[in-house]
Amino acid sequence: MILKALVLNCTLKAASEQSNTEALAGVLVRELEGHEVTTEIVRVTDFHVPPGVTTDEGQGDQWPHIHSKLLESDILVFATPTWLGHPSSIAQRVLERMDAMISEMGPDGLPVAYNRVAGVVVTGNEDGAHHVVSQVAQGLIDIGYTVPGQAWTYWNRGPGPGPSYLDTTEGHEWSATTGQTAAAVLMAVARSLKLNPIPSEAYKA
Amino acid sequence: MILKALVLNCTLKAASEQSNTEALAGVLVRELEGHEVTTEIVRVTDFHVPPGVTTDEGQGDQWPHIHSKLLESDILVFATPTWLGHPSSIAQRVLERMDAMISEMGPDGLPVAYNRVAGVVVTGNEDGAHHVVSQVAQGLIDIGYTVPGQAWTYWNRGPGPGPSYLDTTEGHEWSATTGQTAAAVLMAVARSLKLNPIPSEAYKA
Amino acid sequence: MILKALVLNCTLKAASEQSNTEALAGVLVRELEGHEVTTEIVRVTDFHVPPGVTTDEGQGDQWPHIHSKLLESDILVFATPTWLGHPSSIAQRVLERMDAMISEMGPDGLPVAYNRVAGVVVTGNEDGAHHVVSQVAQGLIDIGYTVPGQAWTYWNRGPGPGPSYLDTTEGHEWSATTGQTAAAVLMAVARSLKLNPIPSEAYKA
Amino acid sequence: MILKALVLNCTLKAASEQSNTEALAGVLVRELEGHEVTTEIVRVTDFHVPPGVTTDEGQGDQWPHIHSKLLESDILVFATPTWLGHPSSIAQRVLERMDAMISEMGPDGLPVAYNRVAGVVVTGNEDGAHHVVSQVAQGLIDIGYTVPGQAWTYWNRGPGPGPSYLDTTEGHEWSATTGQTAAAVLMAVARSLKLNPIPSEAYKA
Repeated sequence: MILKALVLNCTLKAASEQSNTEALAGVLVRELEGHEVTTEIVRVTDFHVPPGVTTDEGQGDQWPHIHSKLLESDILVFATPTWLGHPSSIAQRVLERMDAMISEMGPDGLPVAYNRVAGVVVTGNEDGAHHVVSQVAQGLIDIGYTVPGQAWTYWNRGPGPGPSYLDTTEGHEWSATTGQTAAAVLMAVARSLKLNPIPSEAYKA
Repeated sequence: MILKALVLNCTLKAASEQSNTEALAGVLVRELEGHEVTTEIVRVTDFHVPPGVTTDEGQGDQWPHIHSKLLESDILVFATPTWLGHPSSIAQRVLERMDAMISEMGPDGLPVAYNRVAGVVVTGNEDGAHHVVSQVAQGLIDIGYTVPGQAWTYWNRGPGPGPSYLDTTEGHEWSATTGQTAAAVLMAVARSLKLNPIPSEAYKA
Repeated sequence: MILKALVLNCTLKAASEQSNTEALAGVLVRELEGHEVTTEIVRVTDFHVPPGVTTDEGQGDQWPHIHSKLLESDILVFATPTWLGHPSSIAQRVLERMDAMISEMGPDGLPVAYNRVAGVVVTGNEDGAHHVVSQVAQGLIDIGYTVPGQAWTYWNRGPGPGPSYLDTTEGHEWSATTGQTAAAVLMAVARSLKLNPIPSEAYKA
Repeated sequence: MILKALVLNCTLKAASEQSNTEALAGVLVRELEGHEVTTEIVRVTDFHVPPGVTTDEGQGDQWPHIHSKLLESDILVFATPTWLGHPSSIAQRVLERMDAMISEMGPDGLPVAYNRVAGVVVTGNEDGAHHVVSQVAQGLIDIGYTVPGQAWTYWNRGPGPGPSYLDTTEGHEWSATTGQTAAAVLMAVARSLKLNPIPSEAYKA
């Protein structure tokens, strides 16, 4: 079975700058590709994604490009830095634009995110990863994604301000092992849902 | 395929009092039982569940009784009222006691919550359900449960203080339809994972 | 004593569109102006505020304009809609840009937000206000703002999707009374801190 | 001016066990006592505090004892460990019992928590402090407490599981300095509000 994965990197940084979040997401990418999952990384700041809650806000909106990649992917890896203990403004922008997917139905009559799985990758200087996972997971579950158990990893190093992920090797091993498990459960649950998907009649609204 | 579901009702109320949370969870129970899923409701306040983060805190601890029911169930419906916008103290107590399950391994070498699914039911007077879902879902995902897309329902009626769920019929229809979908996706994903479970080698730690 | 208040409206909408959030914030504005507090409303989407965590990201960044208004104000009213149960991406963008204020010191040697107060206004279709208050209040407290008791109001109307604030009059009275109290406590605590400010020696870092 | 401070330690541990949370709260206690603030620490698990949202749940309920201490205190230091990234079940229990204070009016006709200040102390093994602060601060603000800027400190040491606060000295210095600032701003704002309290007419409900 061929699976596709999309990594959305919600860093605040422009393409020219190194992203700690992308570096940690790379652990999952390597695990996925090692199991023949086609993987693509999109840095959201490379695109013009204006505020809004529809799929196409017009006037040069590049969200439709990302939206179509979402619909081609079985697995979503939602990667974000932590600012003020929260998901980044780019992450929230992405969730707002994905909000429209709640009422977009696929050929099976189900919201388009059904039968897709999502995981979360979080980096930060000091603290906040569990909360960021809670916010991203809840948002994606609202939209219809299934979030498998332990389908996340994070890195930070509190208390207080300190080095970023790429500035040190402290804690990397735990974050990598946890990320490899995340990739493996994402693949496993994506496969289960491909073989035995949620049926059309599940949706009552 | 025979599935078992456990509803944990985390109301603050003693058994003698009517629980709004149990009333809304009843929507899911009826849907599950209509599809031959064996269902049991446990009101946590009926048991002595002292503070702690192990599976048996000794001295009359009745958590082991609930813990064994969790291990017999494919589907967990985690139902809680909202207080101050948060899951109840009973809900958090349950999550703390379930924390030990992170390091309890099943015969497949995986954390015992793997290949089980969980959904969330929330009631409250005014506001807070999305946050309660975020907290409960993140906690259960940490522990290893898979949370299917849209596997939750809620009822509240803001802004400000107002009637409880059983005091009115306003909004009941939306909460019921949403709850029926939640029950259906829980059954569907539980079945998918029974037929094609997350394999032992997924877990890297 | 003359006080100044700044309302930051973090709606996703462009200036040409009516903002529910601004309408509810208007309750506080009227109460503040009725007590001779100079008040200004800034709709953040009217300005180019790129991603970043410094006070000036260069290249047409208009955040410095808003930043200077923050430094002239004793009272901040942080107003945001609710999307996916979270503060808007514009609200998080504002918090990220305000993050730099943690290390900007005033003439008293204290972080510039010390001795300023902040309140929160939240609108939404269905649910999420308490959580939005928690996120905005924690972010502003991190930055150094004092948040007085009950210095917030909100409007939403769950469960499920429904009308926006300006589409109905349901619940408006509660939101207005609560907002008037919010304005009054903001003025009172702002005055207390003007008369007896947190002294320079409080800050130990 | 004589000020009184109450520290509520919401550890899960019984009195016989050493509390990391109490150890970190001790930093604030020493700072407060060094400025002639009378300070008392209450470990909530030493008392029988049953579930409920009234001030006296009857039948051996010992919450009224803690409630009366709250009413005698100008400053509340709310100290909690982190479990699953959340405030402890004891912390949520305390907030639920304090919920009744929203409708308890003082001799000035204001909710009893008005003109009192609160701060937050958080410990944990790995991550979650910002979120815990957000939950506790929002709850206490709902109830009427004023939360001064930066009136919190925390200690944890992610990523992943690791030593507890008292098992190491890593990061203690940052947590201590931050805690000393927290104590100082709590004292300063408590004094400002004693000298110029929020007036009766602020409350509109």
